[in-house]
Formats: sequence, structure tokens, C-alpha cells
Amino acid sequence: MEGEPTLRLRIFDLNCWAIRYLSKRRRERVRLIGDTLRREGFDLVLLQEVWSEQDYSDLKVKLAGCYPFSHYFRSGVIGSGLCVFSRFPILDTFLYQYSLNGYPYMLQHGDWFCGKEPGSRAGVTAPLLSLSLQLHAEYCRDKDAYLPHRLVQAWELAQFIRHTSKAADVVLLGGDLNMHPEDVGIRLLRGWTGLRDAFAEATHFEGCKNGCTLVPDNCFTDKSELLPFPLGIRIDYILYKAISSFTVKCEELKTTTGRAPGTDIPFSDHEAVMATLHIQRQGQPAGTTLGTADPALADVVTEARTEVGVGLQAARRQRYSSGRMAVLALLLLLLQATAALGTLAGLGTEQPFPKLSFCLLAFLALGVLVLATGLHLFHTMEVKMLHGTEDQMWMVLRALQERP
Amino acid sequence: MEGEPTLRLRIFDLNCWAIRYLSKRRRERVRLIGDTLRREGFDLVLLQEVWSEQDYSDLKVKLAGCYPFSHYFRSGVIGSGLCVFSRFPILDTFLYQYSLNGYPYMLQHGDWFCGKEPGSRAGVTAPLLSLSLQLHAEYCRDKDAYLPHRLVQAWELAQFIRHTSKAADVVLLGGDLNMHPEDVGIRLLRGWTGLRDAFAEATHFEGCKNGCTLVPDNCFTDKSELLPFPLGIRIDYILYKAISSFTVKCEELKTTTGRAPGTDIPFSDHEAVMATLHIQRQGQPAGTTLGTADPALADVVTEARTEVGVGLQAARRQRYSSGRMAVLALLLLLLQATAALGTLAGLGTEQPFPKLSFCLLAFLALGVLVLATGLHLFHTMEVKMLHGTEDQMWMVLRALQERP
Repeated sequence: MEGEPTLRLRIFDLNCWAIRYLSKRRRERVRLIGDTLRREGFDLVLLQEVWSEQDYSDLKVKLAGCYPFSHYFRSGVIGSGLCVFSRFPILDTFLYQYSLNGYPYMLQHGDWFCGKEPGSRAGVTAPLLSLSLQLHAEYCRDKDAYLPHRLVQAWELAQFIRHTSKAADVVLLGGDLNMHPEDVGIRLLRGWTGLRDAFAEATHFEGCKNGCTLVPDNCFTDKSELLPFPLGIRIDYILYKAISSFTVKCEELKTTTGRAPGTDIPFSDHEAVMATLHIQRQGQPAGTTLGTADPALADVVTEARTEVGVGLQAARRQRYSSGRMAVLALLLLLLQATAALGTLAGLGTEQPFPKLSFCLLAFLALGVLVLATGLHLFHTMEVKMLHGTEDQMWMVLRALQERP
Repeated sequence: MEGEPTLRLRIFDLNCWAIRYLSKRRRERVRLIGDTLRREGFDLVLLQEVWSEQDYSDLKVKLAGCYPFSHYFRSGVIGSGLCVFSRFPILDTFLYQYSLNGYPYMLQHGDWFCGKEPGSRAGVTAPLLSLSLQLHAEYCRDKDAYLPHRLVQAWELAQFIRHTSKAADVVLLGGDLNMHPEDVGIRLLRGWTGLRDAFAEATHFEGCKNGCTLVPDNCFTDKSELLPFPLGIRIDYILYKAISSFTVKCEELKTTTGRAPGTDIPFSDHEAVMATLHIQRQGQPAGTTLGTADPALADVVTEARTEVGVGLQAARRQRYSSGRMAVLALLLLLLQATAALGTLAGLGTEQPFPKLSFCLLAFLALGVLVLATGLHLFHTMEVKMLHGTEDQMWMVLRALQERP
């Protein structure tokens, strides 16, 4: 970037919804995404939910000409789903793993398996720090059990950006944050890092109303999810900020509008977000740009800390009940062992010993013991992580309040 | 640090071996550590294996006068065991979680439970970036199954330091790295970050021969572990480097020698490491100090990549065999289900149905299925992470080779 007076950077971000066997018309859509990317020639492409490494390899082969550099973030049980294609060399990559990402036993939500280790990765191309990522999904807005987890993730992401961004000139974040623009997690992330929202800053906007990326016009979206939001919701973002002696302006932001340009099917169940940024070197260093120090930030951190505290209470309750369940199962097993020993010692021989039901009960108790112990360990970790995040937030709040 | 011509920084590092119910004379030793720290008045104290939060709280109360700032890294099932006491304000903390840390089913080794989430945390006090940490233990040097995991950790640690250190003036790392000075993991960490070893650089050294921190003179060390190394081994380190316009020199390094000064018992089964550093601001920025670019570094990364590759092969084999076991258990269950259905349908009624053994077998098959599936998922994650690290190392090797 050195020496150039202005760099025009075109970025493409999309949650591809490319789950093998589950996503509708996956192969066709991946082919369509590849064709469009090759035709449009962006500078940087951030994709999420490319769950199959085969799809990534196909895209890589197709895009080798115009995006010579690419990286797929390998991890987790299924894979991370995250990949980056770039016209500029990718100098280095670095992975960050959130400490909390849902519950392993919520199989139908799946974030733990495909998200915990992988969905949380950040691709770093210095001096441009670019992050492609996905936060924990929201499954029920009214009774959102994952809110504390998502807040911990937003906090860890903000901390990660604060601590790694000094090595970059510009920070770019594109991804499916699974949060509405006014949600506390987004406010926390933006407030604590100083990242700016390309949609809000864009000089020129073209696309779905309010920049929505989950819209009823898209034939793949889950219509019931959008019932309370007839215009759609905005959960995919491109955020950016300049470090040191640079300025970044968002010239244009576009979203697709329910279908891919020139076709009758969409790229995915999410709309693609495309930004054109102008990056310019300034005369003098702009000084620190880490977050804003206004009282509003303290309010946001306080609000987030309260939510994390609510999650901590719930996690403590779950830890307690799983622990109690484990103890009860253990007691039952001990009781059974006593009864079996009694029978072996010849007590109560006048009655026939019910072997089958005894056996079934013992296995049931053993199963409950194993499960409840596993849950207890899991919720213990959850309590520690939530408590640790609460501590960190408190430390930051103290520092914010001490500042003049 | 700004404006001061020279800062003399005294650092204390110790693996405290304070495991509740298991460590010998724990309370007495923690009291002794607290008394010594209060008397000596270091600037920064990095402790590992403080497994009980109560011990931390006791130390905090005792040390509040001379170390007003402290932090305990809460996480994992048991806790992280890591804490920091500081004479200077701790501005911010940041946690990093290794992607691999042993096997959950190796209960006797325990790293997964107390290490995975927690042992891997880094305490950051900017502009001094200080890290207190512990890598995966080595249980058998000749046949070290954890070497690939420890290498992944060393690599992630090096990447973490490279990406976060730009925000600091000086990086300090103290901890039990569980590696001998000439091991590939240490060479990788030092080569890739440019960190310098306080023991090798110290103008004045006082302590155990060769700077050993596990010595036979210590009454708590496991003597059988030290049989091949009659002089002891050095696995606890203080590493440092200066960023930008600073220089750091190690004036003095000390270790305890089998017992705490002025007493007849040691602080722990490890020796404490104490360094005195001189930090000075230079006239002009020293430029980038990230790693060394010499051919030796490429050799070290290649060596590490080979070891990670060996681990990847092993993980693939384990994934395959656990998968095969799960399939076999599933087949057995299906066979049983067919037999049960056959009996229900009235086939083979001339023979009595062996209910009890049938039931036992079904539960056995179910248990094997659950266990083998769990193992398969775990080893799948392991494969992904090792593969991802191999990829990253390859990317770095390519960049190293392309450099003039």
C-alpha cells in the first residue's frame, strides 16, 4: 500500500450456506458464486459456510487466475466453513478460537460442532488485517439462550482486534455476525474497537432496504424466521477502520436483492454484501484509534456485562442441577451394588432376584451418571469463561471510568 | 515507560505445583511463596499451577501492599492455574486458547481438563506485553505422543506473540514450557518470534548448573523422571524481546537451588527463575524485530512441520480405527435389533430367548458406539487442527524462501 496515494479496494462478503446434502441447489449456487467472482474481479473475497473442502477446491481452481491467493481455515469436526480469496498475497494467517460457542448437546443447532473451533477463525493479511468470521447463530430472538455466548464471542473478537490490529494499516471485518445493528453485541464490538459500519458510512448505497441481508424476497430464507421483520434483517456486515496514518472511506455499498445478478436464483439464503473502500495515506499519524472513550461505551460495556452476568447465573444453575443429577445416579448405583451384594451373601433368597430389570436399571443409572458428569464438567467450564469475561469487562469499565 | 532513561525490571517466575489434595505441603509452600514475594518486592510475578482460587485469593490479600495489581485467569474445568501479580497497573488481559492440548481420555495426564482451556492463557499488560503460560507436559521423552500437540502450541504461541506484540514496547514471557532448551519447539518459538533467552543472555548468573529448573536436589521432584539427566533439566524460562525503539538487556538471572532461600523446603517441585532486566529507550526505531530470517529458521520450521506431519498421520490412523469401531458397534446393534424383531415376530420360539445376555450385549454395543463416535469426532478435530498448522507452516516456509 506504501507509496500509492489512493487505493480502491473492492470487497465481497457472503454467507454461502453450502452444507453438503442439506443446502438446496448447492452445487449450482457454488458454481454461480465462482462465475460471478471471476467476472467481477474483486480484490478481496470473504466467504462463510463453505462447509465442504471440495467446494473450496473447486472455487480455488476456478478463481486461480484472478485471485491467486486463497486460504481455507481448517478446524473443528466439520470444518470452519471460512475461506478467503485475495488478489494480494496472504502473508500470514492466524486462528482464534472462541472460548464459548453453544452447547455440544444441542445437536439441532450444530454451532458447537461446526462453529466452536472453526467458525471463529480470522484471516490476517498484513498490512491489511482482514477477518472473515461468523458468530453463534440466534435461534430464538425472544428467549435467546445463546446471547451470553454471543456476547462473550463479540467481546473476544473485539479484544482480538484491539490486540492484533497494531500490526496492520487497515482492519477489515466481513461476516455473518448473527446480530441486528442495534444489538448490544454489535454496539460492544463497534464501540470497543472503533470499527465503522460500511452500510452506515457509505456515500452511495444500492440494494435491499436498510441493507438487509436476510430478506423475504430470497426464495431460500426461512419465512417463519422473518415474520416479525417483514422487511428483513441485517446480520451480515462489512466493518472497517484505519490505523495510524491512513484514512478509509466507504464509497459504495451494495447488496444483492433476493437473487444473483442476471439469474433467477440467489447465491445463498443470505444476500451478498459488496463494498468499495478508498484507502489513503495521511500526512501525519492520526494517533490511537482504539475504540471511543465516551460515556456511551461504558454504558454498552455495562449492558453487556449485565447480560453476561445473567448467563453466568443460568450456567451456575445448570452446573448445580447436572451435579445433583450425577450424585443421585451415583447413589442409585451404590444402592444397587448394596442390594446385589446382599443377594450374593444369601439375604432375601426367599424371593426371586429380578435380574433383567436390575440390569436395565443399573445401565440406566450408569448412563445418567456419565451424561450428567459430562454436563457438569461442560457447565463448569462455561461458568469459568463467563466469570472470566465478566472480570475482564469490569477491568475495562474501571479503566474507562478512571480516564478523564 | 515513556521519558525514563532506564528501567530496571525484576521478574519472578515459578511453577507453583499447588494442586489441592495432591501436592505435598501445599499450604506451607504457598505461604512461603507469599512471604518471599512480599519481602523481595519484584516488579512482576508470573505464577503457574495455582490451581485453587483460594490460594490465589490468599496471595492477593497478602501481596496487596507491594503488588497492587493482579489477575487470575479463570477458565477450563479446574481453572487455569495462571496468575500475575504486578507493581504496575494491568491495563488489559487477553486469553488465548490453544486448539490442541492432549486427549480428554488420558485422565491420568489431565492436561486436557486443566490445560486445554486455561493453561494456555496469556496476560497482557501494555505497553509491556507479559505472558504467563504453560505448555503441554512431556510424559515420556523417548516416545512422546504429545510432541505434535506441543509443537502446535509452540507455533500458536509464536503466532500470537507476532500478531499482538506490535502494541507493546517490550514482550516478556515467563513459564513452564515443558521443553528442553535445544528442543525443536523452543527453537521454533525463539526463531519465529525473535525472543531471547534470559539464561543465555544474562551478564551474571547464579543458581543451578545450566540453569536447570527440575533438579535432583529438590526433595519434591520425581527422581525417576530425572534418571537420564543427572544434573537436572531446564524447562522453565524467562524470554524477552524489545519492540521498536527499545533495548532490553538481562543483567542478572537467578534460580533457586533445591530449596527456598533461608528455609529447608523448596517453593515447589520446580525451581523459581528470577531475572533482572534493563530496559532503555533508543534514539531511533530499531525497525522490525519479528523473528530472524536466516536459513536456520527455515530449517527449524521444516523440522517442526515434519513432526506435525507425523502427528497428523497418527491422528488419521486413530480417526480411522475409532470410526471402524463405531461402525462395527452399529452393525452389532442392528444385528441385535433384527434378532429381537425376529423373536417378536414369533420366529425361533422353540428356543428360550436369552433376555439378560441380550440386554447386556446391547448395552455394551451402545457404550462402544457412543465412546467410539466421541473418539472419532475428537480425532477428526485433531486431524483438522494438525493439517491447518501444517498449512500455516508451509505458507511461512514459502514466504521465507521467497525472501532475498
